Order: sequence, then C-alpha cells, then structure tokens
Amino acid sequence: MAHYNPPIRDMQFVLHEVLDVDTALGEMPAHGEVNRELIDQVLEEAGKFCSEVVFPLNRPADEQGCRHEGDGVVRAPDGFADAYRQYCEAGWPTLTCDPDFGGQGLPHVIGMAMQEMLNSASQAWTMYPGLSHGAYECLRAHGTDELRQLYLPKLVSGQWTGTMCLTEPHCGTDLGLLRTRAEPQDDGSYLVTGNKIFISAGEHDMAENIVHLVLARLPDAPSGTRGISLFVVPKFLPDANGNPGQRNGVVCARIEEKMGIHANATCVMNYDGATGWLVGEANRGLNAMFVMMNAARIGVGLQSLGLMEVAYQNAAAYARERLQMRSLSGPKAPDKPADPIIVHPDVRRMLLTQRAWIEGSRAFASWLALQADIADSHEDESVREQAEEMLALLTPVVKAFLTDNGFAATSMAMQVYGGHGFIREWGAEQYVRDARINMIYEGTNGIQALDLLGRKVMQDGGAKLRKFGALVRELVETEGTRDEMAEFIDPLADLAGKVEKFSMEIGMKAMQNPDEVGAASVDYLRVIGHLVLGYFWARMARVALDKKDSGDRFYEAKLAVARFYFARLMPETAALMRSARSGADNLMAMDAELF
Amino acid sequence: MAHYNPPIRDMQFVLHEVLDVDTALGEMPAHGEVNRELIDQVLEEAGKFCSEVVFPLNRPADEQGCRHEGDGVVRAPDGFADAYRQYCEAGWPTLTCDPDFGGQGLPHVIGMAMQEMLNSASQAWTMYPGLSHGAYECLRAHGTDELRQLYLPKLVSGQWTGTMCLTEPHCGTDLGLLRTRAEPQDDGSYLVTGNKIFISAGEHDMAENIVHLVLARLPDAPSGTRGISLFVVPKFLPDANGNPGQRNGVVCARIEEKMGIHANATCVMNYDGATGWLVGEANRGLNAMFVMMNAARIGVGLQSLGLMEVAYQNAAAYARERLQMRSLSGPKAPDKPADPIIVHPDVRRMLLTQRAWIEGSRAFASWLALQADIADSHEDESVREQAEEMLALLTPVVKAFLTDNGFAATSMAMQVYGGHGFIREWGAEQYVRDARINMIYEGTNGIQALDLLGRKVMQDGGAKLRKFGALVRELVETEGTRDEMAEFIDPLADLAGKVEKFSMEIGMKAMQNPDEVGAASVDYLRVIGHLVLGYFWARMARVALDKKDSGDRFYEAKLAVARFYFARLMPETAALMRSARSGADNLMAMDAELF
Repeated sequence: MAHYNPPIRDMQFVLHEVLDVDTALGEMPAHGEVNRELIDQVLEEAGKFCSEVVFPLNRPADEQGCRHEGDGVVRAPDGFADAYRQYCEAGWPTLTCDPDFGGQGLPHVIGMAMQEMLNSASQAWTMYPGLSHGAYECLRAHGTDELRQLYLPKLVSGQWTGTMCLTEPHCGTDLGLLRTRAEPQDDGSYLVTGNKIFISAGEHDMAENIVHLVLARLPDAPSGTRGISLFVVPKFLPDANGNPGQRNGVVCARIEEKMGIHANATCVMNYDGATGWLVGEANRGLNAMFVMMNAARIGVGLQSLGLMEVAYQNAAAYARERLQMRSLSGPKAPDKPADPIIVHPDVRRMLLTQRAWIEGSRAFASWLALQADIADSHEDESVREQAEEMLALLTPVVKAFLTDNGFAATSMAMQVYGGHGFIREWGAEQYVRDARINMIYEGTNGIQALDLLGRKVMQDGGAKLRKFGALVRELVETEGTRDEMAEFIDPLADLAGKVEKFSMEIGMKAMQNPDEVGAASVDYLRVIGHLVLGYFWARMARVALDKKDSGDRFYEAKLAVARFYFARLMPETAALMRSARSGADNLMAMDAELF
Repeated sequence: MAHYNPPIRDMQFVLHEVLDVDTALGEMPAHGEVNRELIDQVLEEAGKFCSEVVFPLNRPADEQGCRHEGDGVVRAPDGFADAYRQYCEAGWPTLTCDPDFGGQGLPHVIGMAMQEMLNSASQAWTMYPGLSHGAYECLRAHGTDELRQLYLPKLVSGQWTGTMCLTEPHCGTDLGLLRTRAEPQDDGSYLVTGNKIFISAGEHDMAENIVHLVLARLPDAPSGTRGISLFVVPKFLPDANGNPGQRNGVVCARIEEKMGIHANATCVMNYDGATGWLVGEANRGLNAMFVMMNAARIGVGLQSLGLMEVAYQNAAAYARERLQMRSLSGPKAPDKPADPIIVHPDVRRMLLTQRAWIEGSRAFASWLALQADIADSHEDESVREQAEEMLALLTPVVKAFLTDNGFAATSMAMQVYGGHGFIREWGAEQYVRDARINMIYEGTNGIQALDLLGRKVMQDGGAKLRKFGALVRELVETEGTRDEMAEFIDPLADLAGKVEKFSMEIGMKAMQNPDEVGAASVDYLRVIGHLVLGYFWARMARVALDKKDSGDRFYEAKLAVARFYFARLMPETAALMRSARSGADNLMAMDAELF
C-alpha cells in the first residue's frame, strides 16, 4: 500500500545546484573523474535498488521480526539475505571504500545519498550493511597491515559484516565502567570474556562471517576510559586462506524485543574466551572507536532523514486522496462528496513541517558529507583542517537535530492519516517506532548536546562555531542587498547575531557553575540546528529565486517551503533561548529524593 | 519490573487544598454528604484496586494482545475478564452513576481521579468499562424510559458494556458521509445494516452483553450530518426478563493490528440487518452522540494524564538508581562507581517537564470535573451555565493539550532510560505507543483546535474565553501585590494580556479569510493550554508558599516544579504566537500537486 519514490530530483538540486559538488570534487585528485553524469547515474541506480529490492521487504519484515533459534542462531526476516546478496553482487558495499581494498573510491556525498535512500527503504535492513561500513572505517584507520589485509576486502565486498560492541548491562554512555576482559596469549592474540548488550546485527544469517569490534580491558589496564582497548573478534576465525574457519567463542544469547526496528537483531552477545586481536594501541580503544562512532552518528542522522522522506511521501499522497470535510473557505472539489484533506491549513502545516525538515536536512547532511570528502581528499591542508572542524562541530547537530525532528515529523505524517495512521496496515506507525531509536543510540541526544556545547563550542572558546558563523555572515553580506532575499536573510542574520551573544552568555555562566552547560545544552543544540538549517534554506531560496521563471515548478515549491520554514519553524528559537537562559537553578533546586 | 504508586497525596492537594472541592460540593444538594473523609477513602480504595488488580496485567496483556477466534469471537488478554469481574463486584462502575439506575451518585471529581488511576494501571483495560460509561450517559440523556429501564441498570452495574459506533472506512472526522442504514420495522424497531471500523471494545469476552450505540441513516434522511440518527443495537437482544436472549445480527469481522493499546480490541463490526432502537429524535443522532463524545474527550485527556504519571514514576525511579557518569560539578556519590543520572541537569529537565505537565494537568482536569459537577448539580442556574460554558470552552483543550503533552512526556520518560527505554522489558516504550492514539481518536487534535478557535472562541465573539480570562485576572489582582508570587503572577498576567490581543487579531484576519482559523488553530490551542496551566500552577504555588514552612517537603517540591514550569515551559508561547501570526499564506500558497 505504501510507496517510495527516490527523491532524485531534490538530491540533484542539492548536489549540483546548491552545493556544486561537481566543482568541489573536481579539485580533489582522488575524485577528479567524478562528474554530474556519474553522480546522476549512481543516484538513479541506487534509487532503483532501494525502492525495488529493499523497500518491499520493510513492512513484512517488521511484522515477522528476527528469530533466535537456539545455539546462538539468529535468522533475519524472509528476503533479507537475498536482498543482501543482490546488494553485494551489484557492488553497493564497495561504493565509497578504498580502492586498495576493493572499493570504488567514490566520494561520501554519493554514499550519503545512497544511505538516505536505503534508510527510506528499510532502516532495519540497512543497519546490517551500515555497521559493516563502520567496522571497515575503524580497522582501516587503526588496524595493523595484517588485520587490514585479512578483514578489509571481506568487509568492503560485503562478504562479511561488522558490529560495534560497546554497551554492557551496567554501562552505556559511561564506557569507563566496562568490565569485559581481554587476556593476552603467547601468539599475540587475546582471549576476550564478557557480556555485551544492544549489539545491532550481532548475529544473523545474511553473511558468512561477522566481525565484532569489541571494547575490553587488558589485565593491567587503568580504571575508567583510559583503560579500554579495542579488539577485533570474528565469529569464525579466518583459516590460512582467510576463509571462515573454526567457530569462535562468541555467541548470541538472546535478541531483544523492542519498540521498533524489529527486523534488525539487537543481540546480547556472550564472549567466553573468544579469540581476538588488538586494534590500535592498548588502552586507546575508545580513541580508535571514535572513528567509527562519528561516522555512525552522521549515519543515524541519515536514518531519520530517510524515514522522514518516506513517511512524508505517503502522508502527502494520502492527503491528496482522502476526502473528508469541506475547506473552510468553500468547496474545492465540488464534484466530490468532500474535499481532499490537503485543502485544510493544518494538514498542510503538518506536511510542510515535514518537507522543511527533510529538504533542509538533506542540504545540511550533503554539505557535511562534502566536508568529509574535503577532509579526506583535499590537497590543501588548511582546507582539510577547516572541513575537519566543521565535521567535528556539526556531527552532534546532524545526529540530534535530525533525529528529534525525525520523530516529530514521522509522528506528524502518521497524524495526517487520522485513525488509519495508528493501524499497522498503512505503514505510517512503523516509521514512528523506527525513528524513536535514533534519538537514543550512538549517544543519546542529550549526550550529543553536551558534546556540542561543552566540547565542540566551549573547549576552543567558540572558534569552530565562529568559522561556521563566518559562512553565514558571508551569505548575509552577499545577499543582504537583494530585496527579494530579505524574508530569508533577515531572520537568519538576526538569529546569527543572537547565537553569538547567547553562546557567550552561557560560556560566562558555565565558568561559575559547570551545571549551566547541561542546563542549556539541549535547547542550545536546537538553536544551532536552526542556524544551520536557516543557512541552507537561505542558500536554497537563492537558487530557487534565480530559477523561478524557468517554468520548472520544482523551484516554486522550494520557495514555498523556504518561506514556511522561516515563518513557522525558525521562531522556535525564541522559546529555546528564553528557556535556556533561565539557567540551572530551576533544574537543580529540587532534592533527588523529591522526584 | 515497573511499579505504580497511586498519587493520592497530590490528588488530595488538588482536591482539598487548591480547589476546596469539599466546600464546593457541599453547596450541592446531590453531594451534600460528600466530605474530605469520604473522598480520601474512595481514593485509597480506588488506588489499591488499580495498582494491585489492574496494573500487573498491563504489560503481559500488551504482549499477548486480543485474539479474534472466528465466528466473531474475540478474547481479551488473560486476566482481563477476571479483573473486570472484581471491578464490578466492588461496585466501581456505579461510582458516579445515577442512583435511580443503581449508581452511587458520587461527583465527577471523584470519578475523574479513579479514571486517572485506572489509566495509569492500564489504558487498554480501562477502555472496556470506559466506553460503557459513555453509552450510559448517552442513553440516560436521550433514551426513552423503556430503553433506560432496560439498559441503564446493566450498564451501571457493569454486567453489560457499551461501544460508540461512528467511524466507517470512508469517514472518520466527516460523519456526514456515513452510509450505514436503518430500516424501520412495524414493531417500532429498526434493521441496521452497514460496516463500522475502529470500534474500541467492540467485541470481547468480559461481559455477558455488549450495547452498541450506532450512527445510521433512515431511508428518507437528508444527506450530510443532518440526516444521521442514533440507534442502540445490543449484541444479544434482551428477552422478556431483560436478560441476553437471541444473538443479534452484528458481528466482529476483524480486529486491527496497531501501534499500541494492543490489549483493547479495535473491531471492524458488520451490521447485517441487526435489530436496533432509535435513541433520541430521528436525524438528530449526532446531537445525541455529542453527549458521549464530550465526556469521551475529557476521558482521553485523562488517559494521557494517567500514562504520563506512571511513565514518570518509573523514569524517576530509574534516574535515582542508574549509575552513569559523574556530575559536571563534581562527584555526588563518590563512594559509588558513578553518580546516579539524576544529578545531570538534562535528566532533571526531562523529569521536571513531565512533572509540570502532570501536576498542572491534574489540577486543570480536576477543576474541569468540578465544573461538570456544578453544571449537573448546582442549584443556581447562572452558576450552572457558567460551568457549562467553561466545560464547552476547555473540553478541546483538555483533550488536545494533555494528549500532545502526553506523547512528548512519555517519550521523555523513555529517553531517561537510554537504550533500555527502547526495550519492551522495561515497559517505558509501551506508554509511548499507548499515548500516541490519544492524539487521534475522539476527534484528532487538529479537530479539537478547530473546535476551540472556530466554534468555542469565535462563535460567541470570545465571550466564554473572557469568562475564563476573568478568573485569571481575579487571581492576578489578588496575588499581584505579593512579592513572593511575582515569579508566577507576572508571566501569567503577561500571557493573559497577549492572549486577548492575539485572539482579536486572529478574529479580524478570519473575517477576511476563513483559512486563517485553520492556520492558527493548533498553535492557538497550545497557547490557551498554557494560559490554563499557568493559572493552575500559580494557584498551586500560592498554596505551596503558604505551607512551605510546614515541614512537609511536598510543598517544597511543588514550588520547585512551579518555578520550572514558568521558567522553562511557558516560554513556548512566544514561539507559538509568532508562528501563528505568520498567517495562512505560507500554508496555502503551494499547489496541492506540488506536495
């Protein structure tokens, strides 16, 4: 009943018309051959794969869920393994990977578009290959040559999948408490023993081997986060030819029943003297894992972007078709028994809210992916550094802002259906359930907010934030003189000025009382989210204004959504700043026992 | 693993200390014997029943769901029928019912407290008896003497349960489109034929008979809403002694799979020449049904209040126990491996948000229930009228504001748990899924907002709203001179002034363009919600200030939550008014085909 049309046109608008990634990539030797034609071709093929092969599995797989069959065997829902086989055969896992290990070496901006579409098609399915990519990045950055040669080609081809094993029953956010132990063996390997929970794609029947990246403590490790090391622990130990050999001592003890992403196995993994190898330096495991976590955080933002898009498409179609009540300003479809509900202002408000979050987020996330390409591949070190800084600053924003909005937006999509939205049949409620986890995993959104304000903004005295502010100012200066841009530029310039003052105020208060950081952080992150989205909406509006007489109604819609964003969504910042400014006292005054 | 402690102390605070319902009820002959002792006794017993008998069923019943066994047989989850038997034996269904039909005649304020606690214990279970009460109210107001004598005693005792059969596949909000037909028979009965969907508690094995109140059209009925009549259609036709006799032609064809309230059967009901009797006048069925719908809308607000309370209690307990990270301002539990997460400002922000919504809503809903008692039982007609007006004005607010907040608050409760919140085991995610339907049924929250602004505020030129405003002004005038009340009274007075201007502005715009109503309505309802909650929070703060030196820390907590509400939640109104003021153009500009 549900449908998914890959939003190729809007992706092309963002990549070619707004960000001009073709030119930007052309300046990088690694991507010199990437051009518009190639990008469009990949988008088309990727969209076809996602909508035709993966999307049809999404709802039945949610109904069926995963099955834990004893002896640690876990079966993914019907059709998942076959779709994964097709995915590998078509070479999709190799898209952005290093050619040295079998990858196609395409830029992140393209990979990002593919990720969005895969998540629209099925977040639960996409998590199986999604985690492999994280394991690939981590081993590539920190593994020994031997480990890289052994594992990377298999992860790149998709023959093997990966996991991240961090959480234990008593520690999630606070990894310093973790207890899994690794005992060194004479041959240089380690025996890993402990209990990990919430391991997504920890066990399944879609690939011939599973490569676990596991945080554990060495016997002599200091306590806390400075005593954590990273190990690679395969499900099957590679034999002399690098093929899956002996079964290793790691077993899935249970899969969790949960609110959403039913089709992805969330595993309790027991390590009982499992053989593993150290990745990176001893006691520096958290550092090595951060490579994987940062990529994963952007990936989570893309999960919500994908869910918002598909939820929106179906809600909009429903709103155009469902006949119910007459427009308050007189019948719009007098020949029908009632008007389609899209005539009602509040239905439009819900749909436009979704559109504004989606299209703004797509521009933001694409730009961030381009920063990742620049950081990886630009020839000029200072350009690479600036891109690294933007990535560091805005990774918590793309994670938390997109996923908070993603939950609200999918819930609005569901609301458009009225009672039918609550019924499984229509598919709308699944997007809400799936979107909910994105606010939690890979660091809760509260943790993202602390990371942004406490670490990314305050630790360098706002230097990185000012660099983003300079981009905004540049746009304001260039466009501020064009009357037709005033409705976009004025509120953006106003917000940018307020953010500067607001950041300084919090910084001053935090020097007196560190709790002021935590008291302001969540509101602060949303304010920065609006600054970023406002910047991209203004850039998009500029392009759309230039082309509004082209006859292509795409630009007309873009301008309408831009106007809606500035008029109806950005005003939230007024409330957020007022709330944050009220300070820590109203939060900290009450005794814990009175809660 | 989850727990529920009936919030008796806070209920007593609201009923006795803030609203002084004892005095108010004492003035009504029907409730002259109701006093504090009686109220407290009922609250205690009700709390015990809810927490001990109903609450333990909630999670297993959600897992098990209802079973449709063919031949129209539907089984409620294990234990539901037995709990319902105990509920009836203890006389709980009779609590607020008319003594003429076997009721205890207690006031709505007490019934409301019971409803809140039942919903904390299990919303899905509570919907079985909850719908009976609506059917009782409707038949009592509009049934013939014969129908009343036949059906009311059975509904009051709980022997029979009731349903509301409005929705059809092609019509929910727009009942004017409905197609179910009723053919008059020679004996004065009707044969009802048609198809109804989303019938909560439409079929089950908890009671010996089910009384459907069904909207249908007579053969000669005009089209639209003025051609709808109401019929009572029992599952079993009463025999000569009023006992269940012959099976009637109404059958449950299917139960829906849905996001939440799994333990309540949402039925597709087929009427195939089922025998029914007219309730109220022909073609005035919608009018008769409105009695039921208004009570049901307040009931839905109470569902979310109940869910927020139990979700909060468990999240707060988790936050006091879960050790993770150190406080930013230095260790608070140095003897433990980490601090309990309640030391973190953002965890407190999430918990205090829930508390502020819960306690403010409890005061609001209790006051509204008292208005219902006044409307029913006060001797002075003008006092009854004013109470009726407050009920009419604020019913859409208690429905939509409490349920929007209820979804956000239960989601915040879940967020406190981190990853554990997403796992079924902890129970937190069920409250989110259950809370989601409350924004939809009994009129979507968008419809409530239109009802508030378009009908309740604009149709009488703001007269009813000004009457509520007079209560606010009275409080502002009395308390405005007390310095210690300034932090509560100043923002309330400020908001009250703005609401007046804001309402007039929208009224003026709407005269030019009716779409301005729909464009402002949802934001408007939230603003009014804050005006109402701000009023009750200020009243509660006044009482708490008076007693803050009593040594009872309850008042200390109350003041802390009041401060939090005004500092952190009420500022939302700034954004809402700015968004609403942007008008209809940004919503209506885009062509439907561009969505």
